[in-house]
Amino acid sequence: MTRLAFTKAQATGNDFVVVADPDGRLDLDATTIARLCDRRFGIGGDGLIRVVRTAALDDGRELAAAHPEAEWFMDYANADGSLAEMCGNGIRAFARYLVDRGLVDLDEGGVLSVGTRAGVKRLRRAGDGFEVDLGRWRLAGGEPLVVADGIDVARPGLGVDLGNPHVVVALSSPDELDALELHRIPRIDPAPPAGANVEFVVPHEPLVVGDLGRLRMRVHERGVGETLSCGTGVAATALAVRHWAGAGAPSRWRVDVPGGALEVRMEHGRDGEHLLLAGPAELVYDGEIALH
Amino acid sequence: MTRLAFTKAQATGNDFVVVADPDGRLDLDATTIARLCDRRFGIGGDGLIRVVRTAALDDGRELAAAHPEAEWFMDYANADGSLAEMCGNGIRAFARYLVDRGLVDLDEGGVLSVGTRAGVKRLRRAGDGFEVDLGRWRLAGGEPLVVADGIDVARPGLGVDLGNPHVVVALSSPDELDALELHRIPRIDPAPPAGANVEFVVPHEPLVVGDLGRLRMRVHERGVGETLSCGTGVAATALAVRHWAGAGAPSRWRVDVPGGALEVRMEHGRDGEHLLLAGPAELVYDGEIALH
Repeated sequence: MTRLAFTKAQATGNDFVVVADPDGRLDLDATTIARLCDRRFGIGGDGLIRVVRTAALDDGRELAAAHPEAEWFMDYANADGSLAEMCGNGIRAFARYLVDRGLVDLDEGGVLSVGTRAGVKRLRRAGDGFEVDLGRWRLAGGEPLVVADGIDVARPGLGVDLGNPHVVVALSSPDELDALELHRIPRIDPAPPAGANVEFVVPHEPLVVGDLGRLRMRVHERGVGETLSCGTGVAATALAVRHWAGAGAPSRWRVDVPGGALEVRMEHGRDGEHLLLAGPAELVYDGEIALH
Repeated sequence: MTRLAFTKAQATGNDFVVVADPDGRLDLDATTIARLCDRRFGIGGDGLIRVVRTAALDDGRELAAAHPEAEWFMDYANADGSLAEMCGNGIRAFARYLVDRGLVDLDEGGVLSVGTRAGVKRLRRAGDGFEVDLGRWRLAGGEPLVVADGIDVARPGLGVDLGNPHVVVALSSPDELDALELHRIPRIDPAPPAGANVEFVVPHEPLVVGDLGRLRMRVHERGVGETLSCGTGVAATALAVRHWAGAGAPSRWRVDVPGGALEVRMEHGRDGEHLLLAGPAELVYDGEIALH
């Protein structure tokens, strides 16, 4: 029986079991990961993050050769053990781990490049957290109707593709947002073939202060249920509201979610507009568990 | 900033943060306990158990003098930081901790006396777990009507008092038990003044094998919601079904709950009939967290 050392981390209430495996020696199968992420019988977490050198991964050597600056790779698995390409909140927890444990130096203004299954992602320090460049995006083209428990009639949503599919729905008041019951999956018509994360949003009053747009959001994550926060969901929400607001809308948005506050920026790069997501992340505790 | 060492334990899916404090030096206030028991921002648990010598507690000296055999006291707090007198699953996790960490010797057939706010409780080894004497009980006298989401009409329940109030409701089929939605509090009419835990039960087929009655149960815990297991709820369920079954019903019951299986025995003592609850408990992992 071996013992696995881990660190628990959270980022706006998304929580992660972080395991250091610099030389890529650990072989955690899906069953083991699901057991570790179980909140009653294991450690508990929305996902498990393995901290591994990019060059130590069998399928990371090509990435390591092309991007030697991406020394570390975020090997991310969902709570059920399935692999995920990226996690907008998880990557801040990953950066927090690297920085706090002295695995990288990241000066104010410096850039941290992280290998992921969705390619190299770049982060900077932002406030007491980090900002990650999520890359490009597109409106998915759809305006499906959405019904959820607690709202009585179907509302139009806006489809946004951020690598994963989102449908953003504007509600008419904070009371309506509070009244939402997200135990059951919101019904989307027409139903997206692979499902979608559904974000429900209301503006703060006033919507814009200075050059900052201000929103409140709740999210139902595909295959998970309601969560305290969803990184790409926050970004999709800001994009949708900017789209609805039209010309002159801010390119910087604060989005309050049940687990905290995140900030989204839209920035023009050489290859088109990028989305940047900023927020806090912290290491919560250290532990050791027996692997059977 | 001090660091707190802890052990995470679980008993049929009820989970606990266990903290060793033999000499009663720790002062964990309700806010700190709630933070530690938070599943995203802390460690996560249904409650926090402090393992303290009975004689080291200010309010334990009298108990220690009257019951010198109860060397250890289970200082139990709910996840919100409020104190609880007893927890039928927690006390097995407590016994597991004492035994596995070598704080007590408990031979097969031996008795472990534990101090609690509900007095001294006695445990024995049972299978790979423990059996605890929950003491006496009484039918609360009420037969209120209960409605919950997923069952369409009101059903009669049976009130049982095990120190805490229970209402047990028989459903007609396993499908009906599966269809129950316990996100919302079941409605009890007349409403008990302090609320109640509500247990929904169906028999296995056949109900009795040998001298063992066999049940399946789901529970909505007062102030908590649906849980994977509830020790006193399991005991109340067995009592109610025995009451309904009438003369000749077994005095030994296995109750399957979402978190595992527990066994209830009814045994005549000098002061009347006692309820005994048996089931597993395990230590899951060790950790250390900063106390701010």
